[in-house]
Amino acid sequence: VALGLAGTAPAVLLEHEGRVVVLLPGPPGELRRLWPRAVAHEAFQRLLARRAERTQRLLRFFGPSESAIARTLAEAGGEGESVEATVCAHDLEIHVDLFFSKEGASRAEGLIDALRTAFPRELFALDDARPVAELVLAECRDLGLTLASAESATGGMVGARLTDIPGASDVYLGGVIAYADEAKERHLGIPAEILDAHGAVSAETATAMAAGARSRFGAAVAVADTGIAGPSGGSAEKPVGLVYLAIDSGRGSSTKRFVLPGDREAVRARATALVLHLLRRHLEAFRDSAV
Amino acid sequence: VALGLAGTAPAVLLEHEGRVVVLLPGPPGELRRLWPRAVAHEAFQRLLARRAERTQRLLRFFGPSESAIARTLAEAGGEGESVEATVCAHDLEIHVDLFFSKEGASRAEGLIDALRTAFPRELFALDDARPVAELVLAECRDLGLTLASAESATGGMVGARLTDIPGASDVYLGGVIAYADEAKERHLGIPAEILDAHGAVSAETATAMAAGARSRFGAAVAVADTGIAGPSGGSAEKPVGLVYLAIDSGRGSSTKRFVLPGDREAVRARATALVLHLLRRHLEAFRDSAV
Repeated sequence: VALGLAGTAPAVLLEHEGRVVVLLPGPPGELRRLWPRAVAHEAFQRLLARRAERTQRLLRFFGPSESAIARTLAEAGGEGESVEATVCAHDLEIHVDLFFSKEGASRAEGLIDALRTAFPRELFALDDARPVAELVLAECRDLGLTLASAESATGGMVGARLTDIPGASDVYLGGVIAYADEAKERHLGIPAEILDAHGAVSAETATAMAAGARSRFGAAVAVADTGIAGPSGGSAEKPVGLVYLAIDSGRGSSTKRFVLPGDREAVRARATALVLHLLRRHLEAFRDSAV
Repeated sequence: VALGLAGTAPAVLLEHEGRVVVLLPGPPGELRRLWPRAVAHEAFQRLLARRAERTQRLLRFFGPSESAIARTLAEAGGEGESVEATVCAHDLEIHVDLFFSKEGASRAEGLIDALRTAFPRELFALDDARPVAELVLAECRDLGLTLASAESATGGMVGARLTDIPGASDVYLGGVIAYADEAKERHLGIPAEILDAHGAVSAETATAMAAGARSRFGAAVAVADTGIAGPSGGSAEKPVGLVYLAIDSGRGSSTKRFVLPGDREAVRARATALVLHLLRRHLEAFRDSAV
């Protein structure tokens, strides 16, 4: 059955031996337009009616590896007996989806408890699928904090992720993409001596970038990154993948060093996710100490 | 046949009635790692050996619609007789891939000529798959120009696209993400009177943002954007999707108004692609006038 077109892209529904196959175009916009027609189709509805009542829980982790989480799940009893678990990596996070029927509920609770006990700090969201940028903005909004950024390695990706979220403007004031050294001096007020003594990719420069962004934008909290995304520009002392991330909240600052694996695209994506997750953690600490 | 694993993701090759089916994981990094194993497999090689020698040409357009290009292709004779043509939209560009055997070569040339005649300015790349950000950076490098950005609607996406490209730093000095109005005043030197009289989303503000970024970064050319990405913030006079883009090259500036369709994500993605393509066109004109 043809379900219709999005532009020139068709959606098709096939039924074969009691199975329903839906073919949809790949581009997300077209897929979203045609998906409701598939769901509305009588064959699809018949399928939904046959399905057993299932509950879904989502656990999101930042820090542990996919295999460490899979091991904890297995040690706690793992899948089976009406509980299905999928573990997958998503933008530096690990997501665990648990699907279970009524009979599996207590077993699923056991798995959640085991994961919570093994990774108390790393489990940062339960049944909350909002992107980390949205969690950061919501946390800032709750705490009455404004935000600014100073990006070098990520070249605008942190700002792009924050401004992806509708209503970002009440929290995120803006940022500087300081790619050239002179831009770091001029727009973030970083003393030339720091750049000369430690280089643009250094803990000192990252710290000064965050402080500079915070004061220049008049923000409560600022994040900064500087690094070597590659493929060129690395050295034995400062290899490709070296990234310094800094957060300045006026109450002091925190600067961290990472050597991230992968190509330029991977290094930049990881650095962006790290900035947002460190910010999220920093805001948690903020909230804890405010209580 | 199992071809191996990338992490926990498998690749599988099936042979069925002379057809070869390769199953690969979706994440690009894992796909890239396993693809060479599929190609190296004996069944795959047998398939390649059977294939006739084919040439591929790629034509990229900015401006015309997919259907306008498909119509031109059809009027010029279209596919068939050893020529295969695919037309697809990609990030606001339209790509035409022509595949042809020796016998189809002159027919393919005819199609290329027809497209070139119909869209002389809109056909911007022939057999060049580099992303538009890379074309912009290469053109700047050739002309000895440096670049800066001032982003509001795109919130860092223009900087992110430019710095995706290795070696961007010799051309792209940096940018300001001016999300809050105060950031526009403070970091781009936009007079409060302009913001008061015309609003943050106006041709006047976009023009001033580009001029401000150019002078503040000491760049030869600067681009700026300001707009309403939605879902809220629109009005009858200034609807969601309204975006002003400005380019300042010291030789004068150019500011354009668009009302872009789609949701927040689509508006921002389109605005980012538009900034890069307008910049590309502006640089072409630069080169033409320099000759």
